[in-house]
Amino acid sequence: MGLCIIFAAPAMAAENTAANIQEIRISLDSVWVILGGILVFFMQAGFALIESGSVRSKNTVNVLMKNYMDTCLGGLVFWLAGFGIMFGINHSGFFGQSHFAPNNLDDWNWNLLFFQMMFAATATTIASGAMAERIHFVAYVVSATIVSGLIYPVFGSWAWGSLFGGEGWLKALGFIDFAGSTVVHSIGGWVALAGLIVLGPRLGRFGRDGKSHYLPGHNLTLVALGGFVLWLAWFGFNAGSTIQANVSIGRIALNTHLAACAGAAAYMAICLIRKKAVLIRSTINASLGGLVAITAGCASMTPVFAICTGLIAGLLVTVVPVLMEKFKIDDVVDAVAVHGFCGAWGTIAAGIFLENKMFNSAVISIQCLGVMAAFLWGFGVAFIVFKVLDKVLGGLRVSKQYEQRGLDYTEHAELSYPEFQKDVTFETDGMTQRH
Amino acid sequence: MGLCIIFAAPAMAAENTAANIQEIRISLDSVWVILGGILVFFMQAGFALIESGSVRSKNTVNVLMKNYMDTCLGGLVFWLAGFGIMFGINHSGFFGQSHFAPNNLDDWNWNLLFFQMMFAATATTIASGAMAERIHFVAYVVSATIVSGLIYPVFGSWAWGSLFGGEGWLKALGFIDFAGSTVVHSIGGWVALAGLIVLGPRLGRFGRDGKSHYLPGHNLTLVALGGFVLWLAWFGFNAGSTIQANVSIGRIALNTHLAACAGAAAYMAICLIRKKAVLIRSTINASLGGLVAITAGCASMTPVFAICTGLIAGLLVTVVPVLMEKFKIDDVVDAVAVHGFCGAWGTIAAGIFLENKMFNSAVISIQCLGVMAAFLWGFGVAFIVFKVLDKVLGGLRVSKQYEQRGLDYTEHAELSYPEFQKDVTFETDGMTQRH
Amino acid sequence: MGLCIIFAAPAMAAENTAANIQEIRISLDSVWVILGGILVFFMQAGFALIESGSVRSKNTVNVLMKNYMDTCLGGLVFWLAGFGIMFGINHSGFFGQSHFAPNNLDDWNWNLLFFQMMFAATATTIASGAMAERIHFVAYVVSATIVSGLIYPVFGSWAWGSLFGGEGWLKALGFIDFAGSTVVHSIGGWVALAGLIVLGPRLGRFGRDGKSHYLPGHNLTLVALGGFVLWLAWFGFNAGSTIQANVSIGRIALNTHLAACAGAAAYMAICLIRKKAVLIRSTINASLGGLVAITAGCASMTPVFAICTGLIAGLLVTVVPVLMEKFKIDDVVDAVAVHGFCGAWGTIAAGIFLENKMFNSAVISIQCLGVMAAFLWGFGVAFIVFKVLDKVLGGLRVSKQYEQRGLDYTEHAELSYPEFQKDVTFETDGMTQRH
Repeated sequence: MGLCIIFAAPAMAAENTAANIQEIRISLDSVWVILGGILVFFMQAGFALIESGSVRSKNTVNVLMKNYMDTCLGGLVFWLAGFGIMFGINHSGFFGQSHFAPNNLDDWNWNLLFFQMMFAATATTIASGAMAERIHFVAYVVSATIVSGLIYPVFGSWAWGSLFGGEGWLKALGFIDFAGSTVVHSIGGWVALAGLIVLGPRLGRFGRDGKSHYLPGHNLTLVALGGFVLWLAWFGFNAGSTIQANVSIGRIALNTHLAACAGAAAYMAICLIRKKAVLIRSTINASLGGLVAITAGCASMTPVFAICTGLIAGLLVTVVPVLMEKFKIDDVVDAVAVHGFCGAWGTIAAGIFLENKMFNSAVISIQCLGVMAAFLWGFGVAFIVFKVLDKVLGGLRVSKQYEQRGLDYTEHAELSYPEFQKDVTFETDGMTQRH
Repeated sequence: MGLCIIFAAPAMAAENTAANIQEIRISLDSVWVILGGILVFFMQAGFALIESGSVRSKNTVNVLMKNYMDTCLGGLVFWLAGFGIMFGINHSGFFGQSHFAPNNLDDWNWNLLFFQMMFAATATTIASGAMAERIHFVAYVVSATIVSGLIYPVFGSWAWGSLFGGEGWLKALGFIDFAGSTVVHSIGGWVALAGLIVLGPRLGRFGRDGKSHYLPGHNLTLVALGGFVLWLAWFGFNAGSTIQANVSIGRIALNTHLAACAGAAAYMAICLIRKKAVLIRSTINASLGGLVAITAGCASMTPVFAICTGLIAGLLVTVVPVLMEKFKIDDVVDAVAVHGFCGAWGTIAAGIFLENKMFNSAVISIQCLGVMAAFLWGFGVAFIVFKVLDKVLGGLRVSKQYEQRGLDYTEHAELSYPEFQKDVTFETDGMTQRH
Repeated sequence: MGLCIIFAAPAMAAENTAANIQEIRISLDSVWVILGGILVFFMQAGFALIESGSVRSKNTVNVLMKNYMDTCLGGLVFWLAGFGIMFGINHSGFFGQSHFAPNNLDDWNWNLLFFQMMFAATATTIASGAMAERIHFVAYVVSATIVSGLIYPVFGSWAWGSLFGGEGWLKALGFIDFAGSTVVHSIGGWVALAGLIVLGPRLGRFGRDGKSHYLPGHNLTLVALGGFVLWLAWFGFNAGSTIQANVSIGRIALNTHLAACAGAAAYMAICLIRKKAVLIRSTINASLGGLVAITAGCASMTPVFAICTGLIAGLLVTVVPVLMEKFKIDDVVDAVAVHGFCGAWGTIAAGIFLENKMFNSAVISIQCLGVMAAFLWGFGVAFIVFKVLDKVLGGLRVSKQYEQRGLDYTEHAELSYPEFQKDVTFETDGMTQRH
């Protein structure tokens, strides 16, 4: 009897201990996932900075408002529909069908919803900068809610779903996209490409003479700050995607950093060799290209290959914009090159450089399949959406007169730097202003 | 004998294990609290950005310096006196009376002191933007130390004290203010209101014709960036207020995010319905209003009600500034609406939407009592402080001549953008400059 | 037999438990170190902001590019060589000799490499602002890779090495520099001093009349934001340097904060006493001086002495720039005062105010030895490097004509604010631009 009691004590203690350990584990994982989500949220600031600095000052408020409102509406829409489509019960493999507008999840899943909501916001906002300086504000906002609530989560369900039963078809095939080179960035890039084709280039971007004219952004300091902010946030994006806090996050963060460094270094080397000026926007874009590219494989390659992935991304960011110009596609921030192409490259690189299984053609084939699927879905649906928006709501694009004046005045009735833009005429033009 | 030894081993191991687990638990909690404090610190940058962007360029350095120095002096004063008043032994329930200028706390309490110091800094800096463009720099700094060292911590002791014995009277009644809708934000808002009434409006804000004239801020990009920074920091503010790292932080962060989204969405919807322009400063203020409002109840309501809380906050931020204008109160950043009114609303909402106890009149009554107490204490004491400061130190408000010239030149002897403000005359005016 | 089985169960459980605890411990430490590294990375943005705001607008892109590229190339070089030199096997005590270009570390060491890489980047970028507005871009970039890959890691190996066997000679003597007042900041400051002497002052900084002329920076808002960003990042720098997450981080963070507050407060008090204007750049520098100074001793002194350390740092930042002017050394951002001198002071203060061993002359002597060693190594090698760079690559300094025009145009072929710098002539000058 006495023995039994003595036995019981350690047994109970062990039970308590196990419960304590489990409780600490889930607490630690919660801290990690929420920290990741917080950092990914800050990407919105990074995009807002890069985009606002890359446009002319007459369109600054407009691009900031697009970023701010796509965060806000995108957040609500992802909660309403996106999360359910992406992570709900998904027996077909093509989209989830439960957990819409969740009000009663179990504790841990709130963490995941928060984290994923920030990823949706990132995918959505990628297109805003590309299409800057000529898209209608309300039309943009509508398109952004469709990306957050439909285009992004459907593809997400293929590659990352589901949490509650069933599995996405790409995931079932073994598609590797650790933190979203394709799921987040390429999708955003291809949406942007569709929008750019429907919208057409800005006035004056391609002259009657067939030559392209660069329209310089009004504030490169903002662009540089935006680059640093995105880079910072990317550590949450990639390392946070472990979901479980563990010792592997160090190599992920390091790979992320090295790929970014390599992207910029590649671009600089090309410029020096070709005796061209090293431009700041391109430098930053090259590092961002490195970050986009390493996102898929950051957890499954060694640093040497992370550097290779980044170097080639830097090359892509140097070359693709030249091609885009040839096709007279006017991408204000080179989002298609940085997010679309580098996302595709990075996803394939994740296959090529897969640790312990390098250059395996079966793996690479599935990666290519995922990349193609993302292009067809992202570009295809977005193209239809933008075409439809162009037919309703008075068109996707503002009038020539409005574009010349600048969208800050015509769409928002305010100026970003009223003391320093004195030459802008402030006529009332029938629009009601509070002030 | 043998058995005893065998028994002893697990017993000792269990003891070690328990100690290890406890040590990990307090380490994890320390990480969480310090991360929260770091994020809340960054609110200072957010306020500095919003406020500097919202003033005319001739007052930029002044508002930045107010933000920087209230952080610095507020930090020292909170360590000297504020912490002791707020968390020291408090048997009366009205203020703490120990732990002033602590130099020898136990390890864990340093974490709390750090975290709370950042909250004090937030409450303090709220008033700086509201009273911008006409308050004397030194008078402001003195008022800020009084907020950090007295007004904030006394009310804080009522609602959140004490750590070392005794309990604040509001806390004893069951007042709910999880992260400080009232304790931090409303107090800051009511202090601002008192200052605004004593100071009076800026020159030219309300014309002789009785009409109000909007004085546009010089840089809306800074305002937008400030909005993103505050939003980021708010995750530390609200989720960090669990103090203990645990799985509940996910829902808190999500509620925080959804309320902000809802605030901005509500404002945008109102504008579109009324066919008015969607202004960027108001959009950002609406989202901040949502953040302020959800701060009290973020840990005790479900997402649907977090959205409701945010929506009504967005409405308040749309309506209250109109009332303020009617009363000719000139709040440069609408701090009274965002922090004062939304803080009050959010505190009541935390009662109304309290999980498992919704619409309970007893709960709501105590919430209202806390809201009233905050107004009486915060507005009342601040009003006296500003009235006294107005009588000493050469007055609270700078001269008309100085106000017209701009405080950067008259109070700080430098310009924020010297290359771009060429028309500002730089006379020496008896002030010594280093350069 | 039955007993045996019953015994086996707790034993196995205990083993599992121990493994679980160890796994959680290393996961938690990983989270803490990576969070610290992420924050330290953000210092790059802080430096970029302070430096770009402190120069004239014609040199903005240049200083931003220097910051961006020293991060990128410095990261690659530290991975290639710096880490091995600093932390590799080090039996001599003078430099490490293993682990170059690591591609296969154990998991935990990736975390350390990531964290340390960010410290190297900080040390490197300190010099960029000091030497702004007249150094050749490519020459700067080359010097930065030498700092990241040689100057910084060699001294680092003395004070902090090694991870893999052997010990640095300063470390062996008991030199205290918890987070790098000397290892990171003084080294950076002395490199800057060497560069400044080789480069000479900017055109117009010291007139023919022998008087000094202040050349005001173009954007003080950026400077203030940079100050907040650096302050934020410093919590990762100092508290993250525990490497192990534990309850002691609270006092470290608090000491860090109080020293910064005290630095700014000291400067403000001096100005008010001397009836001089309180300048924003000096205020921010004073707080940064406090941060630099507390970095060495933040983990081994009580808050009262952290405040003392910060106060004296604030005094140094007020006095040293006056001396520098006397010697006609033109430090654009006062980096030598803030990082060099305050780093030296803080390292000595860490000896003077060492908890439980205050005012111990043996301790203080070793601190002084470390400070001297850092000066001799950092200044000496950098002086040689800059002298050599001045002889090759067409000189360290740009031509007078280029300096007058501004480096943005002459080195990078673009302007930071093209709409607002209309008077800048944009001749092609033989340089190829993409646009």
